Amino acid sequence: MKGKVFLVGAGPGDPELLTVKALRFLQNAEAVLYDELVSSEILKLIPATAQKHNVGKRCGKKKIQQEEINFLMIALADSGLQVVRLKSGDPMIFGRAGEEIEALRRANVDYEIVPGVTAALGAAASAHISLTHRCQSSAVVFLTAHQATNSEAADWKKLAGSGATLVIYMPGHNYVDLAARLKAAGLASDTPALIISRANTQDQQTFLTSVGELQFARRLPAPSLLIVGDVVRLADTEQLNLRSPNREMSIPAEMISIFATDSIAEDPVA
Amino acid sequence: MKGKVFLVGAGPGDPELLTVKALRFLQNAEAVLYDELVSSEILKLIPATAQKHNVGKRCGKKKIQQEEINFLMIALADSGLQVVRLKSGDPMIFGRAGEEIEALRRANVDYEIVPGVTAALGAAASAHISLTHRCQSSAVVFLTAHQATNSEAADWKKLAGSGATLVIYMPGHNYVDLAARLKAAGLASDTPALIISRANTQDQQTFLTSVGELQFARRLPAPSLLIVGDVVRLADTEQLNLRSPNREMSIPAEMISIFATDSIAEDPVA
Repeated sequence: MKGKVFLVGAGPGDPELLTVKALRFLQNAEAVLYDELVSSEILKLIPATAQKHNVGKRCGKKKIQQEEINFLMIALADSGLQVVRLKSGDPMIFGRAGEEIEALRRANVDYEIVPGVTAALGAAASAHISLTHRCQSSAVVFLTAHQATNSEAADWKKLAGSGATLVIYMPGHNYVDLAARLKAAGLASDTPALIISRANTQDQQTFLTSVGELQFARRLPAPSLLIVGDVVRLADTEQLNLRSPNREMSIPAEMISIFATDSIAEDPVA
Repeated sequence: MKGKVFLVGAGPGDPELLTVKALRFLQNAEAVLYDELVSSEILKLIPATAQKHNVGKRCGKKKIQQEEINFLMIALADSGLQVVRLKSGDPMIFGRAGEEIEALRRANVDYEIVPGVTAALGAAASAHISLTHRCQSSAVVFLTAHQATNSEAADWKKLAGSGATLVIYMPGHNYVDLAARLKAAGLASDTPALIISRANTQDQQTFLTSVGELQFARRLPAPSLLIVGDVVRLADTEQLNLRSPNREMSIPAEMISIFATDSIAEDPVA
């Protein structure tokens, strides 16, 4: 019998921010393909009997090509396994899920998508910033800081000019370039900006700055996010100083054992 | 002793799309203030001993003012209760959390925010649409279809002109007006658009259309979402025809009992 692939969002880092469904599929997985950014606390939830494949592609150093990931995922499902493709955050936001879905369809492999809490939402909750606000911003944009082409620079101008809150995923460390792009896009120098590094983990760090001062900001470790817009003024500055959450990053032991089964055959994933 | 308020995202509808943390807080709640849009399956998870307050505000019919919600939430916390303010989706996206957070800070009430899977991500997973795609769209915008002011019309033009995928929350049923606004914003008539109604519930319905044909689209029941952009071409049309998920909308019974305690005093929320 053919297996199935579950494209699962792992959420922003804290294992308790997995959805109940994600946890269930993870604990019934027979093979897991995971990204570099998935936290170690979440990887601990994978059954010991499951195959684990790190298919991480870190900026610059492409350990493994997208085609290889697709090939492995399909081969494992074809061999009859329940395969979880675990992506940090939500699979449909900057997760290249589109390409993997196309490959699965072409190969006629059954699949299911489990949404997750995307990094922007995890960071916003940590910093106590509402990304939309009745009085400040009626829209929010998620974008990435890739190499600037002319057309992308034009897009940034439109997005920034709309008054929407901007959440920049994978901002990198070239803050000088990033600040220049934001200014070129028309944002005022005093527009507040917040860098959040490793949000929702014990290593969370933040740096509150502005578009004008961003180039001098402290380089915080990846993965990080940059939130730009007036809503950042609402950040809880006391909260930002908390470098680690109040509690252990784990999920209750009773929960870990619920879905874990000795034999997958006896209790197949629904 | 003062209580605490937990601003919790309930996710898009399916109780299994609650985060583990949201489930834990919900099952330890002593009072829950919930929105109209939170699904009945999720409300069933609230302990029988907890106070339940429907503070829903449906479009047009404002049953209860924001100030009254703030007042009730603070009064319950001041009386020593563990209060869950349950919002559909994620609290920081169109959830008016900003205003509630300001009120809690002013009242010096301790609070915590638990992010959730926002409606756009639940709908994208259901329809198998990646909201960003390397070849099609490098950004995604979440916005609402309020009354058009001149400044908002200008913003729509910028957002639509950027090439980003647009996800319109609360699109309402005035598809003629909505189509006119999207066209005025510069979108081509053949830009694909998908209406998703009650995504991630057993009543899910979808209608695939385009900006040019939207005015003739079937009116689907609220809550609904409109996804506009080239990524909609990638929707799984077979998947769209599935009007209900394959499985019961519930979470495993073992899980429901984990956090439920007879006495909150013996097992306080962390």
